Amino acid sequence: MLYYPEPLARVISELQKLPTIGPKTAQRLAFFLLRMPESETTKLVQAISDVKTLLSYCDICGNITDRSPCYICTDPERDLQTICVIEDPDDLLAIERTKEYNGLYHALMGVLSPLDGVGPNDLRIDPLFERIRNENIKEVILATNYTTEGQATALYLTKRLENAGIVITRIAYGIPVGGDLEYIDEVTLAKALEGRRRV
Amino acid sequence: MLYYPEPLARVISELQKLPTIGPKTAQRLAFFLLRMPESETTKLVQAISDVKTLLSYCDICGNITDRSPCYICTDPERDLQTICVIEDPDDLLAIERTKEYNGLYHALMGVLSPLDGVGPNDLRIDPLFERIRNENIKEVILATNYTTEGQATALYLTKRLENAGIVITRIAYGIPVGGDLEYIDEVTLAKALEGRRRV
Repeated sequence: MLYYPEPLARVISELQKLPTIGPKTAQRLAFFLLRMPESETTKLVQAISDVKTLLSYCDICGNITDRSPCYICTDPERDLQTICVIEDPDDLLAIERTKEYNGLYHALMGVLSPLDGVGPNDLRIDPLFERIRNENIKEVILATNYTTEGQATALYLTKRLENAGIVITRIAYGIPVGGDLEYIDEVTLAKALEGRRRV
Repeated sequence: MLYYPEPLARVISELQKLPTIGPKTAQRLAFFLLRMPESETTKLVQAISDVKTLLSYCDICGNITDRSPCYICTDPERDLQTICVIEDPDDLLAIERTKEYNGLYHALMGVLSPLDGVGPNDLRIDPLFERIRNENIKEVILATNYTTEGQATALYLTKRLENAGIVITRIAYGIPVGGDLEYIDEVTLAKALEGRRRV
């Protein structure tokens, strides 16, 4: 950082705090910002600020939204008897993009992770049970990730829900569409075999 | 972008205007910004704004600086008889990092590019000749890039400087240090052969 004037060194250091941005990219971005028309940087700065001031999480499902309840929770066209439980709001957007799901969501805002000190009370688990009690829910789809923590969280929820008289499902794991058996890791392949269905 | 609230869609679109940031990275950065503490995003936003308001180009050499003339042009320890001509201020920083050069610089702020409508009057070429006339310059090092435009610019400057009574040099092109002959493109290899020296 030796020869950078302070404002340049500072923007490079701030940019490096973002994911996927290393020292080289941060430097390249900094020079680009320097050359950008001021009207463009103003728009960028405004957009970053607005993300913090205009957006929050839906009080019901945890979706990222500019109003609460969000557009999904208030949509009368959606299936109000199904809740898909996800780790983070990002996962909601991924599922929405498939256009295959028309139910409600519930973001836990994390996963159970005893090593990191994250227990059931640190997640939005109580609000989930409250919704299940108060709304007319028939099915809970557990769509946490296929990681140790995601699996443990799904297991924990399954145990607590088993006497609630609702259908509990877990999304399927297997070979990704377009995936080549030769290059799939063995754990995924084992899951794909285990989850095989009659054709 | 279908399911994004407007501020989120906007920051993703603004981030995508930056180099190296595609749609996936922009989305990832946007979610990261959303989760970042507000104190951190404030620092980022301030740093980006400061780059535009606090920095400019040195009136003499074109270096990126928070005061003009810059710290290089005002450094009495530097060799005031040598000017290294570069395309952009970024190149200055690259050369400074080598710690091998102690002379002055002159950034042209671009290269001659007739196809893009960039002629000598669009670059800082007249100020270069003015410096050569008024300062006691003994050597001009042409360090434009090894591209068609960079070469044309070096050739143009060489022609205009040939009767100025100063030494004109071009930086060397060849095999990068650590480069493996097998993987070097043939143009670079040809240049390396052409530029061979007695050992």
